[in-house]
Amino acid sequence: MTKTNQPTILVINDDGITAPGIKALMETMKEIGRVVVVAPDSPQSGMGHAITIGKPLRLDKVDLYEGMEMYRCSGTPVDCVKLAVNVVLKGQKPDLCVSGINHGLNNSINVLYSGTMSAAVEGAIEGIPSIGFSLDDYTLQADFSHCLKFVKSIALEVLANNLPPATLLNVNFPNIKHIKGIKVCRQAAAKWAEEFDERMDPHKRPYYWLTGVFQMNDQGEDTDVHALEHGYASVVPVQFDMTAHHAIPLLNGWKWSEPGF
Amino acid sequence: MTKTNQPTILVINDDGITAPGIKALMETMKEIGRVVVVAPDSPQSGMGHAITIGKPLRLDKVDLYEGMEMYRCSGTPVDCVKLAVNVVLKGQKPDLCVSGINHGLNNSINVLYSGTMSAAVEGAIEGIPSIGFSLDDYTLQADFSHCLKFVKSIALEVLANNLPPATLLNVNFPNIKHIKGIKVCRQAAAKWAEEFDERMDPHKRPYYWLTGVFQMNDQGEDTDVHALEHGYASVVPVQFDMTAHHAIPLLNGWKWSEPGF
Repeated sequence: MTKTNQPTILVINDDGITAPGIKALMETMKEIGRVVVVAPDSPQSGMGHAITIGKPLRLDKVDLYEGMEMYRCSGTPVDCVKLAVNVVLKGQKPDLCVSGINHGLNNSINVLYSGTMSAAVEGAIEGIPSIGFSLDDYTLQADFSHCLKFVKSIALEVLANNLPPATLLNVNFPNIKHIKGIKVCRQAAAKWAEEFDERMDPHKRPYYWLTGVFQMNDQGEDTDVHALEHGYASVVPVQFDMTAHHAIPLLNGWKWSEPGF
Repeated sequence: MTKTNQPTILVINDDGITAPGIKALMETMKEIGRVVVVAPDSPQSGMGHAITIGKPLRLDKVDLYEGMEMYRCSGTPVDCVKLAVNVVLKGQKPDLCVSGINHGLNNSINVLYSGTMSAAVEGAIEGIPSIGFSLDDYTLQADFSHCLKFVKSIALEVLANNLPPATLLNVNFPNIKHIKGIKVCRQAAAKWAEEFDERMDPHKRPYYWLTGVFQMNDQGEDTDVHALEHGYASVVPVQFDMTAHHAIPLLNGWKWSEPGF
């Protein structure tokens, strides 16, 4: 916290700095503290945890909304977090890092593909209490108003309590006027069943659009998918230790040294 | 497996289809089964779990090395896996998905940033036994020869045994001639301490190169970093359920419904 006890809140997204979702988020955070926005200059949905290493990054201060400290970045959502902490805030850690509000759900397996969630993961790696917010409406016309009291209360909860070490929150909202409440959940087991749309360009060369159908493989009642389907906002604690710890004893039983040696 | 009992092996990477690392990997896999290569047409290091949704993808058969079935893709490593399974193999799952051999380590927190590892994660999401391989040599002149007997034996182990459900392997090799053996490990807790290199372009506008220093925060002797430092190849079982399950009881104790309601 700063001397005035006003928290500094870093706001990021993956839909780009002009998306309505980040405007709703920054305005809500403004009620809580000092807001610094560092967001991609173009849509970065599906960028996952990508970082930019093969080319340099641009970072420019922009004057988009009155009274908002905002920077647009040419890189990915994760680049934005790194530039925010190291260049914009000059190494001073913000008290909170919030990402979104995403136009579209980031529940279940989407946590891996989502630039919104990867920005929040990066915030947590940097040791900043971090939250990703997403709404089940993929349009640019999405109405976030019914989510904002939840967004504010969850941010205040995270500022008041300590998240467990190396843990962040993945918050998703159903697209209904009266959200029933908040459920703490686990990530539902699911995958995207891809369907590539093959087309021909004017030069008779094929190209492919990635499309897919969300395929649930999880009947659990403690998942984020279940909570959202039943009208609740889902809160999944997320970690970035990807070790399958339970598999270590099994793998230790394998005959690793035999075939090739 | 096919009727002839020869496994079909999908080979991916993130350094691009012309990298020496993928050539070493495909040649080693050729000793085991039918090899299908689908790799990015340009370097995709640091692409993490990015997918391409805002523009279409190109996929072209190429004749790079004699007797190799190879396709180059304009997308990310994860796109390559999706196109391989759905378009190249027409929905038929390969028996094994191997990614790499990466020019550079993907141990510890690098599992999140690495296109090589994200391709293997995507393979596992698709239900394919998957392994990512990486060598501690970032140059294009890297010599992979001392790793190949390990690569082959690990691939054979995975084909012979079943990996636990929703689990893949992250294998890293030290850059020493005589690797001592294989250690099953957990992902070391670490992060990159960024140092952005700010420069001026000829038009007097600043730009930034992302650089960083790997910062270990883990003294454990059961980590991948420890194994590599002591001359062993590290094998970390990786999962894509990112839920911090241990945090759920704590979060259930928070007063979620109070501040905003």
